[in-house]
Amino acid sequence: MTERREIDGSRLGWSIVITRMSHLFLRTLRDDPADAEVPSHKLLVRAGYVRRVAPGVYSWLPLGLRVLKRVEDVVRDEMNAIGAQEISLPALLPRDPYEVTGRWNEYGDALFRLQDRKGADMLLGPTHEELFAQLVKGEYSSYKDLPVILYQIQTKYRDEERPRAGILRGREFVMKDSYSFDLDEDGLKSAYHAHREAYQRIFARLLVRYVIVAATSGAMGGSASEEFLAESDIGEDTYVRCPESGYAANVEAVVTPAPEALPVDGLPAAQVHETGSTPTIATLVDWANATLDDPVTAADTLKNVLLKTRVPGGDWELLGVGVPGDREVDMKRLEASLEPAEVVLLDDADFAANPFLVRGYIGPPGLQAAGVRYLVDPRVVDGTTWITGADEQGKHVVGLVAGRDFTPDGTIEAAEVRDGDLSPDGQGTLVSAKGIEIGHIFQLGYKYTDAFAVDVLGENGKPNRLIQGSYGIGVSRLVAVIAEQQHDDKGLRWPAEVAPFDVHVVIANKDDAARTGAEELAADLDVAGFEVLIDDRTASPGVKFKDAELLGMPTVVVVGRGFANGVVEVRDRFTGEITEVAPDAVIGTLRAARG
Amino acid sequence: MTERREIDGSRLGWSIVITRMSHLFLRTLRDDPADAEVPSHKLLVRAGYVRRVAPGVYSWLPLGLRVLKRVEDVVRDEMNAIGAQEISLPALLPRDPYEVTGRWNEYGDALFRLQDRKGADMLLGPTHEELFAQLVKGEYSSYKDLPVILYQIQTKYRDEERPRAGILRGREFVMKDSYSFDLDEDGLKSAYHAHREAYQRIFARLLVRYVIVAATSGAMGGSASEEFLAESDIGEDTYVRCPESGYAANVEAVVTPAPEALPVDGLPAAQVHETGSTPTIATLVDWANATLDDPVTAADTLKNVLLKTRVPGGDWELLGVGVPGDREVDMKRLEASLEPAEVVLLDDADFAANPFLVRGYIGPPGLQAAGVRYLVDPRVVDGTTWITGADEQGKHVVGLVAGRDFTPDGTIEAAEVRDGDLSPDGQGTLVSAKGIEIGHIFQLGYKYTDAFAVDVLGENGKPNRLIQGSYGIGVSRLVAVIAEQQHDDKGLRWPAEVAPFDVHVVIANKDDAARTGAEELAADLDVAGFEVLIDDRTASPGVKFKDAELLGMPTVVVVGRGFANGVVEVRDRFTGEITEVAPDAVIGTLRAARG
Repeated sequence: MTERREIDGSRLGWSIVITRMSHLFLRTLRDDPADAEVPSHKLLVRAGYVRRVAPGVYSWLPLGLRVLKRVEDVVRDEMNAIGAQEISLPALLPRDPYEVTGRWNEYGDALFRLQDRKGADMLLGPTHEELFAQLVKGEYSSYKDLPVILYQIQTKYRDEERPRAGILRGREFVMKDSYSFDLDEDGLKSAYHAHREAYQRIFARLLVRYVIVAATSGAMGGSASEEFLAESDIGEDTYVRCPESGYAANVEAVVTPAPEALPVDGLPAAQVHETGSTPTIATLVDWANATLDDPVTAADTLKNVLLKTRVPGGDWELLGVGVPGDREVDMKRLEASLEPAEVVLLDDADFAANPFLVRGYIGPPGLQAAGVRYLVDPRVVDGTTWITGADEQGKHVVGLVAGRDFTPDGTIEAAEVRDGDLSPDGQGTLVSAKGIEIGHIFQLGYKYTDAFAVDVLGENGKPNRLIQGSYGIGVSRLVAVIAEQQHDDKGLRWPAEVAPFDVHVVIANKDDAARTGAEELAADLDVAGFEVLIDDRTASPGVKFKDAELLGMPTVVVVGRGFANGVVEVRDRFTGEITEVAPDAVIGTLRAARG
Repeated sequence: MTERREIDGSRLGWSIVITRMSHLFLRTLRDDPADAEVPSHKLLVRAGYVRRVAPGVYSWLPLGLRVLKRVEDVVRDEMNAIGAQEISLPALLPRDPYEVTGRWNEYGDALFRLQDRKGADMLLGPTHEELFAQLVKGEYSSYKDLPVILYQIQTKYRDEERPRAGILRGREFVMKDSYSFDLDEDGLKSAYHAHREAYQRIFARLLVRYVIVAATSGAMGGSASEEFLAESDIGEDTYVRCPESGYAANVEAVVTPAPEALPVDGLPAAQVHETGSTPTIATLVDWANATLDDPVTAADTLKNVLLKTRVPGGDWELLGVGVPGDREVDMKRLEASLEPAEVVLLDDADFAANPFLVRGYIGPPGLQAAGVRYLVDPRVVDGTTWITGADEQGKHVVGLVAGRDFTPDGTIEAAEVRDGDLSPDGQGTLVSAKGIEIGHIFQLGYKYTDAFAVDVLGENGKPNRLIQGSYGIGVSRLVAVIAEQQHDDKGLRWPAEVAPFDVHVVIANKDDAARTGAEELAADLDVAGFEVLIDDRTASPGVKFKDAELLGMPTVVVVGRGFANGVVEVRDRFTGEITEVAPDAVIGTLRAARG
């Protein structure tokens, strides 16, 4: 790929390293790969940046690896700037620390587990909270040693159920994970904010468009947490924001504003009605509007969903969830609310095993009489009146009052969030958008330092339990995100900070003088500090132009027909602008454009 | 760890990055770790370069990671210089390619195997011949694309039976593996020699003392192969060399020079003797010298060792191996000769199951009569006469002639190699030494390209099967090897090319002026292009000097008592030499020393 060529003594005896398309391990593809759906995946494969080895497992070819390393360097640079120290922990880990914190089980199928030749259980690290807590415990013993921020840029493993879009959601991927350890919560907050600002600088340098949203902390444990979501229609994370107030949150993190409770005194008694075959909300609403005096909408009904849940290591237990009938249950919100417990919908066998559950006609009193835990949407406050199941086939109850006829065991964020819903801050309404998680910052708290008793001697002579933060950036995912946000219909477009090469010199003229001129220009660019890819192949100019657009270097310099007249073309891959300049003016032009 | 400090406008507004011991994530240890036996392991742990997580699985702390990355950079630089292209393949791999080549089984327990959530078999890559062959097949289709050399610097996994000496023999380790693909054998030889020379340059830059020895190719397959062994008394690889001729070989690769065959005509007939209880060679020789006319040594007896072997996927088969009685069987040589078959010595149950084997009295005729494959040391040529077992309890045969009374099924390199043995080139005798394998280069041949039918269209219009080479360097192991070869009794000593920092500035004076002077000197060194570690702790000078010696930066600058008189000490960690210079002469002194 590279050739070293000593240039003549009139220069500095510098060693020139030019990458040549004629030798580069690269074959661009005309057709999209059959398994690719999203643009970044198609283009990264077609342009020869990555290759699939197994589901969610990819190889990085020369150009892809260069982008990945440059993204790593930006991340490293900004982490070092906040005083974080780089180390590297193994990916192959013993079971024990993850057993101590319960994550050996909590991770479920997403954890790659294996045994060594002696039968010892091991895992491939999905994230390293445990190991960093143990490491700091082993090295540090005094309050004088704190605070500390440690990070690594490392290959991680998660056995995703649905690996997706090439390197966007892989099972083997590169992540920057960092961990802060502080003496107290103020220290944690300071480390958290340092990370928040470093992440903003990183994503700004990478030209990533993103939002910061309030998040749930999932299986990580901990309290405050925010996600950095890259704006993208192909994102799997839905977030909502309130244009009026600037509030933004992951859908899982939206807290439904509860209305004021109403007085129950004077409300009419609940009445059971024969409703015939009305197993759905729609059929029930039709019946009500045909039968009752007042008009009824789905929002007046209470839909009861039956699930079973299991905490790690525990038994399955039934759970009833009541939401207003005009809203679907959002399983991701429901799961996030119950984490780390697993949760699944009841199946036929479960109903058969629990004959008191009258499918389609389940009501809160029946559930609670049977001892089933029953949680409701926060809108179901005391004094609200509902049409819901009467626990008998073909019967519903009208006028069932929360706080009088039934008392839920608590509330749960399980109902879908919709555009137009009231913002939790009360300042306006919510609109939704799609995003790709590129960063996540957590104020973990004491979950892991408690698990391993990570104490140092405090200034007062007593043990001081450390408080931990955890911060991640999906480094390999960022390569896909940049491709996704920056590409156009001709191919990839790389921001200067991460492009595999700064300049792509295309020889589009068979004339010997032009070829020699292009080689000299490439060498001059190299000496001037630009990384250069030169297309010295025998292919036609048309093929070379198409490849240059597909590969996406920010600047393409074409040495073509105009060379005889003393001009070459400088093409800006982002704006499409073409400037004709003299060969010896190219460096000045590029430097001016770089600013 | 790092602090950025803008220095005043009289300089360049440069951003200074100095690493401070007061913030560095590092605690040096006074005592050797309990599990460490070899000096490099003890020192790398004591100096806080690495920490153990599980057997053969280590974390790299800040200083260790810096050395590792610098070793990687030297390797990368020299690989790029021979035109090799860096890519990165996954560590988590599907079973199928390794099944095709048989290595899924051949690797035995050394392979980390696991299943994903769907039950698909996967493995952690120990080396990537299969994947690179498949990759090249996928990308390249014409002879015009060749030759190509691809490499990666990657974390690899082998479930070693005896992980050892910290990072010296880990189960997770960093390796540079490269693969060449050529149209013909001449091309392969050229790629092989390019690697050989690149490796020599790499090890020279790292100041590693090493020898290149002829090697067997083990489970890799292929023909020509050489190992680079670092000279070290703690090495597990024994090699031999012939001082007269320069011949050097791994013991497994030594080919015993076979003597000329002798005429069998006229030799007396073999005679069976009652030898009483003579189950060992020593007792048999005693009997012979007491009974026979001519004096006898152990070298006149033929020792028959019984084993069973199994090719991957096959059944166990008996194997007899005959060696002169004065030599032990070297199981590593025997195993290397039979690879990829497994081999174990017979146990009591095996003898019980095969009653024709009269333990202690086994002879070639009995084995061959029972259909047992029988291989002999190359010294057992036709016409040689032996005392050996007569296949009956208490009986031996005297004057048994090879080529007359028995005909072996072939020869095998199983006997130990001893100092003083004839060199295979006939130019002198062998002496043995210990080494640590740091590199291995293989002319693989067609093993993998045949397995995956890696063809391109040849210049003649017909398919051209590619020929492959495979080349490895143990990158993380090299960190241990350098520590092992360079340390002294005070601690580590890093060659300039890989030291975590170029200069270690020790503030050994509490005076404010000295402290300020040290800080300024550190900043000046940074601006001058040196990487600087400054010991700004409040510890005593003695503690700081001890740590500086333990950590092993090549140059230590002490700002101590002399500062008031305008001098600081420049200490060379290798020679121990101390030079007193003015603070503003330090940079000139170091530049002069660097040459």
